[in-house]
Amino acid sequence: MPSKNAEAAFESLKEEFNEIAVLASCESILGWDEVTYMPEGGAIHRANQKSLLAGLVHNRATAPRIGDWLAEVENSDMAKNGDPIAANIRELRRGYDKMVKMPESLVKEITKETSLAHVIWVEARKNNDFKSFLPSLKRIIKLKVQEAEAVGYEKEPYDALMDTYEPNATSAQVTEVFTALRSQLVPIIENIAGAPKQAPVEIIEREYPVDAQKTFVEATAKSIGYNFGAGRLDVTTHPFCTTIGPGDVRITTRYNPRRLNDGLFGVLHEAGHGIYEQNLPQDEFGLPSAEACSLGIHESQSRLWENLVGRSKAFWEHLFPSAVKAFPKALSNVALDDFYFAINDVRPSFIRVEADEVTYNLHIMLRFEMELAMIRGDLKAEDVPSVWNEKFKDYFGLDVPDDRMGCLQDVHWSAGLMGYFPTYALGNLYASQLYDAADRDLGDLHAKFRKGSFDELRHWLTKNIHAHGRRYPATELVERVTGKPITAKPLLSYLTEKFYPLYNVS
Amino acid sequence: MPSKNAEAAFESLKEEFNEIAVLASCESILGWDEVTYMPEGGAIHRANQKSLLAGLVHNRATAPRIGDWLAEVENSDMAKNGDPIAANIRELRRGYDKMVKMPESLVKEITKETSLAHVIWVEARKNNDFKSFLPSLKRIIKLKVQEAEAVGYEKEPYDALMDTYEPNATSAQVTEVFTALRSQLVPIIENIAGAPKQAPVEIIEREYPVDAQKTFVEATAKSIGYNFGAGRLDVTTHPFCTTIGPGDVRITTRYNPRRLNDGLFGVLHEAGHGIYEQNLPQDEFGLPSAEACSLGIHESQSRLWENLVGRSKAFWEHLFPSAVKAFPKALSNVALDDFYFAINDVRPSFIRVEADEVTYNLHIMLRFEMELAMIRGDLKAEDVPSVWNEKFKDYFGLDVPDDRMGCLQDVHWSAGLMGYFPTYALGNLYASQLYDAADRDLGDLHAKFRKGSFDELRHWLTKNIHAHGRRYPATELVERVTGKPITAKPLLSYLTEKFYPLYNVS
Repeated sequence: MPSKNAEAAFESLKEEFNEIAVLASCESILGWDEVTYMPEGGAIHRANQKSLLAGLVHNRATAPRIGDWLAEVENSDMAKNGDPIAANIRELRRGYDKMVKMPESLVKEITKETSLAHVIWVEARKNNDFKSFLPSLKRIIKLKVQEAEAVGYEKEPYDALMDTYEPNATSAQVTEVFTALRSQLVPIIENIAGAPKQAPVEIIEREYPVDAQKTFVEATAKSIGYNFGAGRLDVTTHPFCTTIGPGDVRITTRYNPRRLNDGLFGVLHEAGHGIYEQNLPQDEFGLPSAEACSLGIHESQSRLWENLVGRSKAFWEHLFPSAVKAFPKALSNVALDDFYFAINDVRPSFIRVEADEVTYNLHIMLRFEMELAMIRGDLKAEDVPSVWNEKFKDYFGLDVPDDRMGCLQDVHWSAGLMGYFPTYALGNLYASQLYDAADRDLGDLHAKFRKGSFDELRHWLTKNIHAHGRRYPATELVERVTGKPITAKPLLSYLTEKFYPLYNVS
Repeated sequence: MPSKNAEAAFESLKEEFNEIAVLASCESILGWDEVTYMPEGGAIHRANQKSLLAGLVHNRATAPRIGDWLAEVENSDMAKNGDPIAANIRELRRGYDKMVKMPESLVKEITKETSLAHVIWVEARKNNDFKSFLPSLKRIIKLKVQEAEAVGYEKEPYDALMDTYEPNATSAQVTEVFTALRSQLVPIIENIAGAPKQAPVEIIEREYPVDAQKTFVEATAKSIGYNFGAGRLDVTTHPFCTTIGPGDVRITTRYNPRRLNDGLFGVLHEAGHGIYEQNLPQDEFGLPSAEACSLGIHESQSRLWENLVGRSKAFWEHLFPSAVKAFPKALSNVALDDFYFAINDVRPSFIRVEADEVTYNLHIMLRFEMELAMIRGDLKAEDVPSVWNEKFKDYFGLDVPDDRMGCLQDVHWSAGLMGYFPTYALGNLYASQLYDAADRDLGDLHAKFRKGSFDELRHWLTKNIHAHGRRYPATELVERVTGKPITAKPLLSYLTEKFYPLYNVS
């Protein structure tokens, strides 16, 4: 029997973390507004608002009484392994110990610096002017190194940062997985590049009026299960998904009137994130059990819907007639096979978020290596453009034309999100492995997609992934659900089985 | 010389009130989002966010240390009259004393009662069912009387409530001004009603496509000086202006495709509020010197731009050609004179927010007299409909068909905003008096409007009104700027000089 004190302590933790989460969620709406509707002139005040809230949240989340309550529960039967409470206590303890190591001044400084840097980065990218962003990047790297030192790490300062996004992951493990993946990806890319058959990409570069795109992608996101009664879709420079709170999970995208893929797969991707958030146990809001497991798992959900569902032949056997209706000028005399090939074009390209499924992971590896070096102190901010361009030539065989197409393309570094990129590639690995398990459990998913039926898959994901919140570490969760430890095999099989026939590679 | 302690105390006050204002401004963005873009599902969480922030703000704003800092400064040379700091201390003291006098239980009860009453009022208005709203109104009157008793007053409990919106105003003064105004307004209205010439209102009830309206009113708001770099315009059921913080002052409106006035003059009105907020000394954010003087002064700014500028002939001599271009179908064969007459239609009507410039103030007087009597205990809640209808007949010569068109039309009483209505009419009085002074100082404003030039007027308002924040009480501010105490003369002259020729009243 848990003691009265321990029960009371757990109740206090629940209440306090709910309030902290409500307070933190005010930051979410500030962040969402900042990149959707905020007028330019509001940038400085917005930085003040966010930094004040971040400080208040940090302050409450690091109060000694939380440590006391945690200890009370930890010393009771309630924290016994297997008990659902135990996982919450374990994760609250992880977060608490980490947070108390972060000085409030540093938290505030990072929040303010990155909020200001965002505006500077947007301008710098627009004007292809890395130099104007350089001072911000320098300060951010310095602050992130300070964060790593404050939080502590075993071998690699970068691990302290990555742990925020992918708990328990280390750069050594990631390097190992990435190296193995890369060694097999490169020949696949070469085989495809050397194939005589090439995708008729001109099809997706026809005129796709933005209004028609909006209507079409909104209907598509709805059809796979993103709930617009508890969410919305807006336009931003950099697409994202953000949870304002229970019942309010928003996604964004951008539209290119001469390229269907950006808006369409962008929305499927963010809707995948949104479906995860919308199906977390929201009545436990504030507790780890109501939070996403890791960003790698998060990305597995977005990539699964974007690629394994949204770029599958079966999906378009269902959806193509609607697409023709939505874009008659572009698609009226296009065959499904050609459209399917066009949206699955594989070729080295400059922009990560527009990259195909095969080359995508190389974009991640490049960024991972660079930020690892930045945080180690081996790469200076001023050398970022030249190193980026060298590596890009090495990985993709392409000369980067300018920094807009190179090191200025991503929002992450301006937002202080060093350690975040690897989770994208981990997400791809998890996605394939989870999809295989779902296909095995539910039987022939493609047959369901052909009928426009996505509920079974979504319910499977909710039951096996969403409902667990942060109960298990990412790798353990995947192993529990799929019966196997993390491996690159499902991803590599998926890629060769899909793309070799498409490109007539034998 | 101010003492070191007093200087330090003032610095502490500045910092603390800045932080409190930043925190409170997070509530502003939550409120704005709630009525613009929030998905339905987010309502409960939004209420949690807002109430948490409101609690935090109230808590900090009533902390004893604020009283200590205030006393420290008050006992020093810094608070000497004439010193710019003195006005800030005076206003901070006003706010603090008032806030600490309000028992937290009463604050909470009013918040709860009015949030419940809002839903009940919406239903009651829809169903024309005053009885269902009656119990709420009774409780709200009782709570507002309790608030008046808690806060304190000299002669009239109502004054304690009105003071929140129009500091230092008393019902005795307001009654005097209103009585004088009314005695002269009634014959003007009768003369206009009896005129043989009537406005060709059908012109503004033609088809005005919403997209064209949006483009047109945005350009118009910009032309008078509302800064879209530090603001934006969105669509809501009830138009408003909200300050998120320095550099971010947003306005909203609603569009009626069959009535040009609603969107157009709604935006000019809100832009007037917005221009005031955008030109307050924002670097002192959090101090009274960076805040609007009173709601009456605020309303003077919105009414000045909406009516004295936006409904003037000179304004349309400049703008009408653009309006014809924007709405060719509706306006191509309309003469400027007819359009000008149509937007200036005067006739007694039931709904305050749709009333013309001449009859508008009678709507306010009726409400003021009624709420004054309610708070005195001279008017029982159950008698509100019959008293409303009697007074309406007396003032407007019209029989109120039902309570939807009568005492249930406004949100204010359900929201506990007793004491707010007079500020609308005070705003009209101030607006005319200020406009006359500007016209005298700057010379022939109409000539400037004809050239599309509004900067001089806006700069004059900034220099004479906006820049002062809450340095002077409203009546003192107006007297300082215009050289005369508040009088109804400028408003009455403006109305007769404008409307008598229009209606051929000799």
